Amino acid sequence: MDAHRVVVVGGGFGGLRTVKALRRAGARVTLIDRRNFHLFQPLLYQVATSGLSPGEIATPLRRILKGRGDVGVALAEVTAFDLENRRVLARSVNDEASPLTFAYDTLVVAAGACDSYFGNDAWREFAPGMKSIEDALEIRRRILTAFESAELEPDAARRADWLTFVVVGGGPTGVELAGQIGEISRDTLRKEFRAINPEETRIILVEGAERLLGAFHPSLSATAARELGTLGITVRTGCLVNDIGVDHVVVEHGGESERIPARTVVWAAGVAASPLARVLAEASGGEIDRNGRIVVRPDLTLPGRDEVFAIGDMVALVDPKTGRLLPGVSPVAMQQGRHVAATVRRRLAGDLTSRPFRYTDKGNMATIGRLRAVVEVKGLRFGGVLAWFAWLGLHLTYLVGFQNRLIVLFRWSGSFVTRNRGARLITGEPRSPDRDGDSGTSARRPAATHDQS
Amino acid sequence: MDAHRVVVVGGGFGGLRTVKALRRAGARVTLIDRRNFHLFQPLLYQVATSGLSPGEIATPLRRILKGRGDVGVALAEVTAFDLENRRVLARSVNDEASPLTFAYDTLVVAAGACDSYFGNDAWREFAPGMKSIEDALEIRRRILTAFESAELEPDAARRADWLTFVVVGGGPTGVELAGQIGEISRDTLRKEFRAINPEETRIILVEGAERLLGAFHPSLSATAARELGTLGITVRTGCLVNDIGVDHVVVEHGGESERIPARTVVWAAGVAASPLARVLAEASGGEIDRNGRIVVRPDLTLPGRDEVFAIGDMVALVDPKTGRLLPGVSPVAMQQGRHVAATVRRRLAGDLTSRPFRYTDKGNMATIGRLRAVVEVKGLRFGGVLAWFAWLGLHLTYLVGFQNRLIVLFRWSGSFVTRNRGARLITGEPRSPDRDGDSGTSARRPAATHDQS
Repeated sequence: MDAHRVVVVGGGFGGLRTVKALRRAGARVTLIDRRNFHLFQPLLYQVATSGLSPGEIATPLRRILKGRGDVGVALAEVTAFDLENRRVLARSVNDEASPLTFAYDTLVVAAGACDSYFGNDAWREFAPGMKSIEDALEIRRRILTAFESAELEPDAARRADWLTFVVVGGGPTGVELAGQIGEISRDTLRKEFRAINPEETRIILVEGAERLLGAFHPSLSATAARELGTLGITVRTGCLVNDIGVDHVVVEHGGESERIPARTVVWAAGVAASPLARVLAEASGGEIDRNGRIVVRPDLTLPGRDEVFAIGDMVALVDPKTGRLLPGVSPVAMQQGRHVAATVRRRLAGDLTSRPFRYTDKGNMATIGRLRAVVEVKGLRFGGVLAWFAWLGLHLTYLVGFQNRLIVLFRWSGSFVTRNRGARLITGEPRSPDRDGDSGTSARRPAATHDQS
Repeated sequence: MDAHRVVVVGGGFGGLRTVKALRRAGARVTLIDRRNFHLFQPLLYQVATSGLSPGEIATPLRRILKGRGDVGVALAEVTAFDLENRRVLARSVNDEASPLTFAYDTLVVAAGACDSYFGNDAWREFAPGMKSIEDALEIRRRILTAFESAELEPDAARRADWLTFVVVGGGPTGVELAGQIGEISRDTLRKEFRAINPEETRIILVEGAERLLGAFHPSLSATAARELGTLGITVRTGCLVNDIGVDHVVVEHGGESERIPARTVVWAAGVAASPLARVLAEASGGEIDRNGRIVVRPDLTLPGRDEVFAIGDMVALVDPKTGRLLPGVSPVAMQQGRHVAATVRRRLAGDLTSRPFRYTDKGNMATIGRLRAVVEVKGLRFGGVLAWFAWLGLHLTYLVGFQNRLIVLFRWSGSFVTRNRGARLITGEPRSPDRDGDSGTSARRPAATHDQS
């Protein structure tokens, strides 16, 4: 008999865990991803803030699965699901004209999430999100270029605009980004500029809800807000974003509208499921929720399709323990990956019973900066140095690759001592070369003279 | 009296050395560069071949010059030289509408070199060069994607095209690139693919002259060719490139033309001076040679402009010792930087005598791969393991930044033991998304089925 064919779409936390947990299951596994690497997204903000290089938080999928003769990796972009004929359609990344098909007996879709601008897609240009390495490098480019532009700007008001940074979204990513920008301005760039004082930087963290870190206990939200305050970051909760442009953000707080002049805005507010969730729902006649997530049965299969699983951030599933939707975090995706692999193993052994997925919540953590973090684990809540070391240890543990772990640890130790950042490069072309095009700022103005006499 | 103002254009080996050597000279120095970092170009090929991340071979200029209160850094692109009024005109990288001017008493232009396609600029699209981090990442993307495309290609001939790599140019960069692609295919990717055997890769190094490494002694050229042969690389000397397209290179050897089908071509053949050499020549009424280099006087000043120096790869200057033009290598640029700084210091002390620049040739080295290199220093010539360690030590010594040195050493040790490469990521958008557009390969063909049954 031919081996059971499992096709896994997506090499993120959910998909990779599924493949790993299928080791020696007797299946033939194909992992399809658009990218050739597994990205450790929880540290992506460190790439955006110059602390780490992309290669230090990403590992080639082929390398991770090198010893697995039962696994093939395909660098391709999935375009459609032919569930009737049990085939996945995809295109090769290099040659779009050549359609590929992958036949399966079991399909696992783990395509993750992307940024959501709540219908305001025009904001994307002015406020890039934090989902890919390219996003992170674009944010890095903007943050570093802002200081450089300020240094060369003779007009005080314009200089202040360059030195104002707005982070939209007070979840862990927003908190971490704001904290890091604070450290860059206070520590890393100190004494490196002549015309500006980077410590004059204004960093504003905007959150729509009444507190930061909504998934955490309110006491930790308060700790985080206090810690950010000591880093000089202005925290604005209960504050909705109404508009974002090339040089401003308009926020609304208690019915009052306010225009914040700022040249650098980062989006860490909204997440929607991968568009593949909708493609899969349409193919299966299934439902998606308002964030584009596909509704799955308690055992993670699609309604009416026992052989098709969907897991991770692209899935809407209510946690029976809490009555709320499971959060879009990596532990959920990884546990779901293990659940799917266990189900496949049981089925291969002839046991066709369905078992519901149960999520074990191991807690939450977010880092705010040097020696500052908040952690909650099993009712235990703490902040400060201990939380920071817990955060550090956990992230180094889950980061894939021995070399990367050591290098990240080394980079962090170096940064800790010298306050420098290892990857402070402005690279790549600006994503929107004409971003000044429709704003009032591009009017030709008199030459700035740098006479230094 | 106001301090003497020195403006240095370019933060490469020449410009940075000039600035460093002006420490405590009593001048006010401004370093202008388009990029915010000093790039260690001799290791750029390692970024292109996935061994290192960009952040590991680049260091922010501001960081290097942090303690230097007498030095300002401006991230700007020089557009013109107003030599009459002793001003440099530039535009800010972020805001093109705002012209900047930098007044000087002494000007040092060290703008370096860029790729030259000998008038065939259409080749650039199919055969990127190796001058910037963006170039290197594009080459990395193409090399890694070629193997991925081969893995998904059902047609044997097309698969062979994806597995054929042509490196044009047999200087140190071409030799190093070819050697590294050889190691990727034989060692790094071994056992990572299912449909292809990366060891079937063909790597062809094409050189127009009769031997590789023309700047080296012929015996080392022979050693290098032999070592490349043992790595499975085909060395084609005396071989001119007549055409490059999306899937082929046409070469001419002894009057015979040959079409080599290949999907990945890298350009390491020609170098021309930065376009600023021409701008400077036109401003000063000076001459440029056929490679676009500006002709300077023996003391590195421009004819008739005692206060303007040009140094490094953008300069044409005959070495009185050899009667030949000085080569475009970093030791020349660095020694010239020191010479200029010494001249400025003497002038500030009231000594206006002109002293000609004298180049001290310390030798040549090129690495070919794991434990293989060739070195010549003061008449001493050797290859093999000893040469490789000499190469290693020298590169680690000259690499800027303590952290980078340790990380590069660590990456190399890791690669040496595991044969893995630390930065094997395909990132960024393809530079020419329509590169298939005008070739015969984009015809729609039947779906490739990956049935793995």
